[in-house]
Amino acid sequence: MSNLSSILERVDDNLEGAVARLFELVRIESISTDPAHAGDCAAAAEWLAKDLIEIGFEAQVVATKGHPMVLAHHDGPDGAPHVLFYGHYDVQPVDPIELWECPPFEPQVVTTPDGTKHLTGRGTSDDKGQLMTFVEACRAWKAETASLPIAVTILFEGEEESGSHSLGPFLEEYAEELKADIALVCDTGMWDRSTPAISTSLRGLVGEEVIINAASRDLHSGMYGSAAANPIHVLTRMLGELHDHDGMVTLPGFYDGVPEVPDEIKEMWKGLGFSESVFLGEVGLSVPAGEKGRTVLEQTWSRPTAEINGIWGGYAGEGFKTVIPAKAGAKVSFRLVGEQNPDMIRESFREFVRARLPGDCKAEFHTHGGSAAITLDVDMPELKKATAALKDEWGKDTALIAMGGSIPIVGDFQSELGMNSLLIGFAHADDNIHSPNEKYDLASFHKGIRSWTRILEALG
Amino acid sequence: MSNLSSILERVDDNLEGAVARLFELVRIESISTDPAHAGDCAAAAEWLAKDLIEIGFEAQVVATKGHPMVLAHHDGPDGAPHVLFYGHYDVQPVDPIELWECPPFEPQVVTTPDGTKHLTGRGTSDDKGQLMTFVEACRAWKAETASLPIAVTILFEGEEESGSHSLGPFLEEYAEELKADIALVCDTGMWDRSTPAISTSLRGLVGEEVIINAASRDLHSGMYGSAAANPIHVLTRMLGELHDHDGMVTLPGFYDGVPEVPDEIKEMWKGLGFSESVFLGEVGLSVPAGEKGRTVLEQTWSRPTAEINGIWGGYAGEGFKTVIPAKAGAKVSFRLVGEQNPDMIRESFREFVRARLPGDCKAEFHTHGGSAAITLDVDMPELKKATAALKDEWGKDTALIAMGGSIPIVGDFQSELGMNSLLIGFAHADDNIHSPNEKYDLASFHKGIRSWTRILEALG
Repeated sequence: MSNLSSILERVDDNLEGAVARLFELVRIESISTDPAHAGDCAAAAEWLAKDLIEIGFEAQVVATKGHPMVLAHHDGPDGAPHVLFYGHYDVQPVDPIELWECPPFEPQVVTTPDGTKHLTGRGTSDDKGQLMTFVEACRAWKAETASLPIAVTILFEGEEESGSHSLGPFLEEYAEELKADIALVCDTGMWDRSTPAISTSLRGLVGEEVIINAASRDLHSGMYGSAAANPIHVLTRMLGELHDHDGMVTLPGFYDGVPEVPDEIKEMWKGLGFSESVFLGEVGLSVPAGEKGRTVLEQTWSRPTAEINGIWGGYAGEGFKTVIPAKAGAKVSFRLVGEQNPDMIRESFREFVRARLPGDCKAEFHTHGGSAAITLDVDMPELKKATAALKDEWGKDTALIAMGGSIPIVGDFQSELGMNSLLIGFAHADDNIHSPNEKYDLASFHKGIRSWTRILEALG
Repeated sequence: MSNLSSILERVDDNLEGAVARLFELVRIESISTDPAHAGDCAAAAEWLAKDLIEIGFEAQVVATKGHPMVLAHHDGPDGAPHVLFYGHYDVQPVDPIELWECPPFEPQVVTTPDGTKHLTGRGTSDDKGQLMTFVEACRAWKAETASLPIAVTILFEGEEESGSHSLGPFLEEYAEELKADIALVCDTGMWDRSTPAISTSLRGLVGEEVIINAASRDLHSGMYGSAAANPIHVLTRMLGELHDHDGMVTLPGFYDGVPEVPDEIKEMWKGLGFSESVFLGEVGLSVPAGEKGRTVLEQTWSRPTAEINGIWGGYAGEGFKTVIPAKAGAKVSFRLVGEQNPDMIRESFREFVRARLPGDCKAEFHTHGGSAAITLDVDMPELKKATAALKDEWGKDTALIAMGGSIPIVGDFQSELGMNSLLIGFAHADDNIHSPNEKYDLASFHKGIRSWTRILEALG
């Protein structure tokens, strides 16, 4: 234990340097969905590989058809367990840019009125700040003991925010190098500011883009109005029918394979003391939308959803233009639970659209990723060890929670590499991930590093 | 008549110069709805005033709260009639710019495969090319006879495409200078390539913008999906209900004051030989949309419509973003006929939106112009004189037609200045006004100038 104390002390002493390193990484504009930022994604991968080599890892940047992977390895003591740590260095786009109070790629330490210190910038929470908590824990171990207590393989992906297209082929090709006793994934949140959490179930995700094409060119609504098909009408009408008045998704077969949450789990969730009014109130809302008769936790953790994430068509600029556009489109995503089949859901949506197409309109579809929901084994011994380590750091029991978001790689680890995952993260609900003004609490970063430092030992 | 022949000959001889002048005007990017082009609008007004002064008009640029007016006057012989000619120098936006085959502000003379010559560029048809037909006719008269056969006042507006906000106050302030025996408006089309037309009824227009506000910031759909109100869902649902399945507009009271077209008028329209399949086929369509049981001509000339001209919300860029946006919006326009009241229609729409707002959502509205429908007196003597002049030029009777579009100023001339209007224009249905690849037939421009040359004499 004296070993651990001195490593933790080193973490505390070196926090400033850790923040400076994270800021270097945040400054790289690695927006994976935007082809204009491909160079930045490569730069982020290079930066990480270099940093891992400095720590003492064998690290390489592996080219893919998309953005590169970072793959690194460090041995542990003979016979020690072997973990695969996963994170992603790519980030979400930053629009609407005008809503950022601090520039997204110029990270700062900001002290809020209540004295909390925030690290600001795109990716500070999702996922650069989180993955660096693990890297910094390894750095402290190496600096203090010249070794790691377990064997560690690291995989950093650059396409998590844009469909992970290269991941499948990569996992297949590098299966032998990636296989470990368990995967550690740091891309999730805490239960609240003082309670650590491990996520044991994750929803799946289907991303779809639909474009409705009508006339061969934009038309004047005075000349053609009502006589010519307006693709915005077609789109709004069909998307307006995607939910019924009880908030249920109307796609045929959508609820096939959706399990009812067992009463004991519902009871456990009730015990978490989740406040719907606080959760919604933080973002200016007060009335739960969505499925009638379901709590907010049930909706976001255990129920499948359909959300329109973007819509466009016609003139959206300043002023007015009396146009009937030639086309209009929308991006729609589905969160899946239980045994819902991503391919079936996608096909059901396409059929739903086709069935509502009037004459003269054609529908065009684009696939943006698909993954099934995942439930992890809550009895694995590594989970007990990790929760004990987290209790040492936070002084509280770990909440075992579900997660509304989707981390497709956890399913791939399960199906492709036969590995369980431990999902441990230090983000907060108000981190504004995927939104303007993303931040990561300095405390999340600091105690996150300390938590991994302890977990590395606990697993050893 | 020998006077007229020599003026027409001058028009023919000077066509090249007239095209060059029009191109100078088209090169000025006077997009009135975009504040970034305010300087260009002022430049277009200055260019026109200078040109009119060169011809021999007294002309001035009159500042308004928006874009300036061009006001010019030329006396006629003692006791001669007095006309007010109206046109607009502002143009529509050019997006989507990538669809233009020739740059919108670099006009060219292009010969099509069938030998037709087009003048290409934004505003060549709507309305710079059209207004210059009248200016060039005046130029020819002045050059040949050093006079005009009637007194002419000219008003060029710079906000026709963006709501004409300054027009009301201007008409009030300059009422005495603007009053004439009749107004001539050149912003309409021919019946077909060889048949001139005078528009005797015009639909009204209500422009509305609605923005649905929900959460205080953009949200992650994995964390908040279905629990948080999604303004795109709210918007698509309500806009999807704007028409019923027979294509009728569902706003309460919408059809109040909508007259049925008399059978004899319907018969006359049938006699025009309008082909729905050709009309729709030219823009890649084949199935009439809109109100069931109505012909395309009825729909676009005599029926009120509701069209969504633009919609936006969430992420519409490359790739995908699982966001629930804080807001989403749409631009909606209504074409009015008969006695439909623009204010009532606007209020009915707002009420329709408010009635469909779920908890936590707020609606924000922006007014983009409103005008009632107009029916002109078909028995006015100037109409007979003009049709005779047009027959001399085109060798065919003039078609008296309705018009699907809206020219609010015609109503203002009627109500504010007590003046009838003659709506004579030379545009074609395939001119792509308000769309990429706007053009004006060189024949429209040339014979348009010749037509006005004759009409000036006929009215004298």
